Amino acid sequence: MKTNGIITLLTDFGDLDGYVGSMTGAILSINPNATIVNISHHIERHNIEAAAFVLSTYFHYYPEGTVHVAVVDPVVGSDRKAIAVKANKQLFIAPDNGLLSYILCNTNKWQAFEITNKELFLPNVSQTFHGRDLFAPVAAHLASGIEIDRVGSKYFQPQQFQLYLPKKDDSSIEGVVLYIDVFGNIITSIPADWLSAISFRLQIGKSIITTLSNSYSAGQKGELIALAGSSGLVEIAVNQGHAGASTGLQKGDRISISLTND
Amino acid sequence: MKTNGIITLLTDFGDLDGYVGSMTGAILSINPNATIVNISHHIERHNIEAAAFVLSTYFHYYPEGTVHVAVVDPVVGSDRKAIAVKANKQLFIAPDNGLLSYILCNTNKWQAFEITNKELFLPNVSQTFHGRDLFAPVAAHLASGIEIDRVGSKYFQPQQFQLYLPKKDDSSIEGVVLYIDVFGNIITSIPADWLSAISFRLQIGKSIITTLSNSYSAGQKGELIALAGSSGLVEIAVNQGHAGASTGLQKGDRISISLTND
Amino acid sequence: MKTNGIITLLTDFGDLDGYVGSMTGAILSINPNATIVNISHHIERHNIEAAAFVLSTYFHYYPEGTVHVAVVDPVVGSDRKAIAVKANKQLFIAPDNGLLSYILCNTNKWQAFEITNKELFLPNVSQTFHGRDLFAPVAAHLASGIEIDRVGSKYFQPQQFQLYLPKKDDSSIEGVVLYIDVFGNIITSIPADWLSAISFRLQIGKSIITTLSNSYSAGQKGELIALAGSSGLVEIAVNQGHAGASTGLQKGDRISISLTND
Repeated sequence: MKTNGIITLLTDFGDLDGYVGSMTGAILSINPNATIVNISHHIERHNIEAAAFVLSTYFHYYPEGTVHVAVVDPVVGSDRKAIAVKANKQLFIAPDNGLLSYILCNTNKWQAFEITNKELFLPNVSQTFHGRDLFAPVAAHLASGIEIDRVGSKYFQPQQFQLYLPKKDDSSIEGVVLYIDVFGNIITSIPADWLSAISFRLQIGKSIITTLSNSYSAGQKGELIALAGSSGLVEIAVNQGHAGASTGLQKGDRISISLTND
Repeated sequence: MKTNGIITLLTDFGDLDGYVGSMTGAILSINPNATIVNISHHIERHNIEAAAFVLSTYFHYYPEGTVHVAVVDPVVGSDRKAIAVKANKQLFIAPDNGLLSYILCNTNKWQAFEITNKELFLPNVSQTFHGRDLFAPVAAHLASGIEIDRVGSKYFQPQQFQLYLPKKDDSSIEGVVLYIDVFGNIITSIPADWLSAISFRLQIGKSIITTLSNSYSAGQKGELIALAGSSGLVEIAVNQGHAGASTGLQKGDRISISLTND
Repeated sequence: MKTNGIITLLTDFGDLDGYVGSMTGAILSINPNATIVNISHHIERHNIEAAAFVLSTYFHYYPEGTVHVAVVDPVVGSDRKAIAVKANKQLFIAPDNGLLSYILCNTNKWQAFEITNKELFLPNVSQTFHGRDLFAPVAAHLASGIEIDRVGSKYFQPQQFQLYLPKKDDSSIEGVVLYIDVFGNIITSIPADWLSAISFRLQIGKSIITTLSNSYSAGQKGELIALAGSSGLVEIAVNQGHAGASTGLQKGDRISISLTND
């Protein structure tokens, strides 16, 4: 696998200050031809699980050889490690704090390396901003074509948080709320195709949903609907409303669906 | 007209999630050399008219052969059509919901096509995210040089909402509020050059304006002023304030100017 | 010094409208190969000092020959001048209102020019949007390789606001609050290395700080800490909190540190 020069950035740094601008400069100083894509810098501060989920939604739309950088790093300056992972014919760089959980879960053919080679860092590494001083320059070098094993030694136990895999039996399906997006759509862990060609009943509060709608504009204004979201997962939405706010559901809440014989 | 590799994106997707990142990946997977410009992803959700106005303010600053993508798409998943339009030596891609009203009004030499050629889409088109699965890949192919008639058949009746053209007679000028920008400046539909070299009187609430100022910093702090805005239209502003909030004017409100003989 | 094709943009234009998109189009129409980096468009409106500080944090991470554009321009349309400055082997373009104070202070080997050559502007320069009509096209031309002296005559007195340089004597260090970032971290004007290898005492309200911590996650939750920030300056932070809000400190407030003999 050769890198293709594309580097994506996902952080919780916001866009009010010069932090992302400094990371970008560090990349362009090493690799002036890099194509830098700012995915989002508005991950909720220190919310590693949200960043991990968002990363899982876009990486597979990028071509082989893309370098994905994700930095949500509450304990920067502590002894947490930094890692580079090859998976899905792409490279991922992040603090070793669970950020790559979905990536590692997605395939069993990953290789991880601990990032320790200071020759790849900026000359002075601050204790508070590894995004600029370590992750950005390592990404720039990888996107320039250095081999991933140049970053450091093989690493076998990257941190992973527990992913709640959905369960299905003859009478029910169980999942959880993975994420609530900017529109208030509630993204569950349940694959939408599990609900095709069967009869089901999903109760949320007093609302009962028995079909997958085709569109966020289905149903009456304010009506709770379910549909196959853009990641292939069941989403719960409200026509012209914010399902997260109107249901009170939160990340991690359980979603139970009864299978019926109508 | 050849495309030049530049693709602009205007949406209401926000920047909290991975949606724009997925669109960008879909483009770069097809056309790794595209120059992608994120105009704004903060159009008010589902506000087609605001997006149409914003699009009208920047497109003509881009070189010939630019591909402009605009996706504000409240009924994605329904049977609304998708269109590609050639106008002003540029290409425009959008849902057929009025988003291109100003573009179509700007010239009578446009050509429209209905986007139906599935070979240009991602392999699996979701019902909820045509931005990623349809509009982005079609833009990438067009920016790579395919002819616009490859997207589908000619289309003769793209949706257009009614544009309130300003009117002028001997004694008065009538226009409307088109848009209120992030600074609170009220952009009207009245060409600023209609007010040059004449005497006029514009009353808003108890404020009376009789001159065009040169600068947003003209007048006293808090004073209501009018000036020639950057789109060549009359704007109403408040020195160090938010004219939208202080006047209560809203999009669509009528603006009447008396012509005087002083 | 040759320019390298990279142009950075820092403004207070927000990202709701088409303003930055228009600037970008103006650049790409002149220089389609420019690499445009959006640092931030969320500088507090009209806050020249904040923009000047943010600019000082990222410019030196960019390679030689980068063109940095900064536009926070409260009196656009008045007779304020526009300037181009060569410093630090890079170019800077801004209204002449103090925005480049840190850049000019950083070196005594700068050269400034007043931007007056209309051949480099867009054909019609509005009175309200010099970002698009003047600064963007001049940046595009400079990044294309024209010499800086083409923009206009040499200029010897660019505006600079007073920078409060930190002071140190045997018993104390005095500085000010320069900036409070999006996380609430309070960035002072005191170099962090002034506090290395000495004993000190920094009192803020009832909190007393006597060490530099290694990480924003140091201390107890809610505890006020000091650390060496990413710009090499002393920062005051709160573990999992917002130091700006919890201390009430504001830009310009004095920070006094006692040197002790423990």
